[in-house]
Amino acid sequence: QCNLTGLWENDLGSKMHVFEVDSEGNFSGEYHTSVSSTAKPIQPSPLVGSQHLDKDGQCTFGFTVNWKKFSDSTAVFVGQCFTDDKGDEVLKTSWLLREKADALPNDWKATR
Amino acid sequence: QCNLTGLWENDLGSKMHVFEVDSEGNFSGEYHTSVSSTAKPIQPSPLVGSQHLDKDGQCTFGFTVNWKKFSDSTAVFVGQCFTDDKGDEVLKTSWLLREKADALPNDWKATR
Amino acid sequence: QCNLTGLWENDLGSKMHVFEVDSEGNFSGEYHTSVSSTAKPIQPSPLVGSQHLDKDGQCTFGFTVNWKKFSDSTAVFVGQCFTDDKGDEVLKTSWLLREKADALPNDWKATR
Amino acid sequence: QCNLTGLWENDLGSKMHVFEVDSEGNFSGEYHTSVSSTAKPIQPSPLVGSQHLDKDGQCTFGFTVNWKKFSDSTAVFVGQCFTDDKGDEVLKTSWLLREKADALPNDWKATR
Repeated sequence: QCNLTGLWENDLGSKMHVFEVDSEGNFSGEYHTSVSSTAKPIQPSPLVGSQHLDKDGQCTFGFTVNWKKFSDSTAVFVGQCFTDDKGDEVLKTSWLLREKADALPNDWKATR
Repeated sequence: QCNLTGLWENDLGSKMHVFEVDSEGNFSGEYHTSVSSTAKPIQPSPLVGSQHLDKDGQCTFGFTVNWKKFSDSTAVFVGQCFTDDKGDEVLKTSWLLREKADALPNDWKATR
Repeated sequence: QCNLTGLWENDLGSKMHVFEVDSEGNFSGEYHTSVSSTAKPIQPSPLVGSQHLDKDGQCTFGFTVNWKKFSDSTAVFVGQCFTDDKGDEVLKTSWLLREKADALPNDWKATR
Repeated sequence: QCNLTGLWENDLGSKMHVFEVDSEGNFSGEYHTSVSSTAKPIQPSPLVGSQHLDKDGQCTFGFTVNWKKFSDSTAVFVGQCFTDDKGDEVLKTSWLLREKADALPNDWKATR
């Protein structure tokens, strides 16, 4: 079974620490991003999310990262656990990064 | 200040109930979607997320909806609170819906 | 049958002029955007694209807008023609805007 | 300078043949996808697009693929040319795939 609990690293070098996943699938953790669109120093940032608890270990999951320590933006990730050819667990994810728009007319360009 | 706590409805008729937002910005709630890509009956689904607590009331936020009660997919939303011309609070959001892929080669088409 | 040829306007006030659609579904045109993420003055920008020629008039289509006259970015739109309750043709589209990244490590944030 | 003309292959094994890029940056070509969300046999599909002609060879570009030979969907790609560490030209792209929705209420889930 895929257990998100633990340390994960992505291709860009960002690291994620997922704490205990509870019986409902909820979890919290900490995201250490290696990339940023702001000038301020990067800091470890809290995340909260939820995963399915499928017995086949290929669960989908999602989580939110609140960058409040150095930015007014928020990111969400959604993905799925897989076991690759070598037997290693891999996470495939997509993300959206929401920056703060100063007013409604600029909403159209606030998400990447 | 934008407070996500309460009831929200979107253009498609989906309703969201956000429970209390804590001092860290974390919250949980329930999402009643009006649309689904599965055949099973829709059920209210748990959500967890996080928002910024900016004093100007234009905070960004994100949350994860776990559709486990009727689907093996997961959705994430990211957005921002605004006050519109009439003085009403509106949420502008973008989302990603992750369906469960049966194997890694089908990962490319699992997110919409 | 949905014919893209003509003038279209979106919710943000951007206007699009699609010239003749040929028998293969290819077309060119001009896009007058009302919003921009750059500081330079907006100019009408050339577009090229392709649509299906379905008899039911609900064709999908896509096109590329080259902002070269005032920006080094490129946008793509993909969508579908519908006839709404009032009998009017409406286009529902999604888009991606690619900005020029100065180097590969900044590729991750170049698309919104 | 980045010249899109030629043959390209992506990580999934899909191949793209871009014919001559004209002085405006417009081009056509053929896309041989290795993956499909439909059951019909895949066929080479026409593409049309546009690129910037920047002297630094890091141009952004976009193109539309019309899958009409085996599907009623349309895809758009947007991206940028880079030269990687080894001196090879690489294309980094993002895409949207629009499937045909049978009616407006199903528009929300037609793009992935």
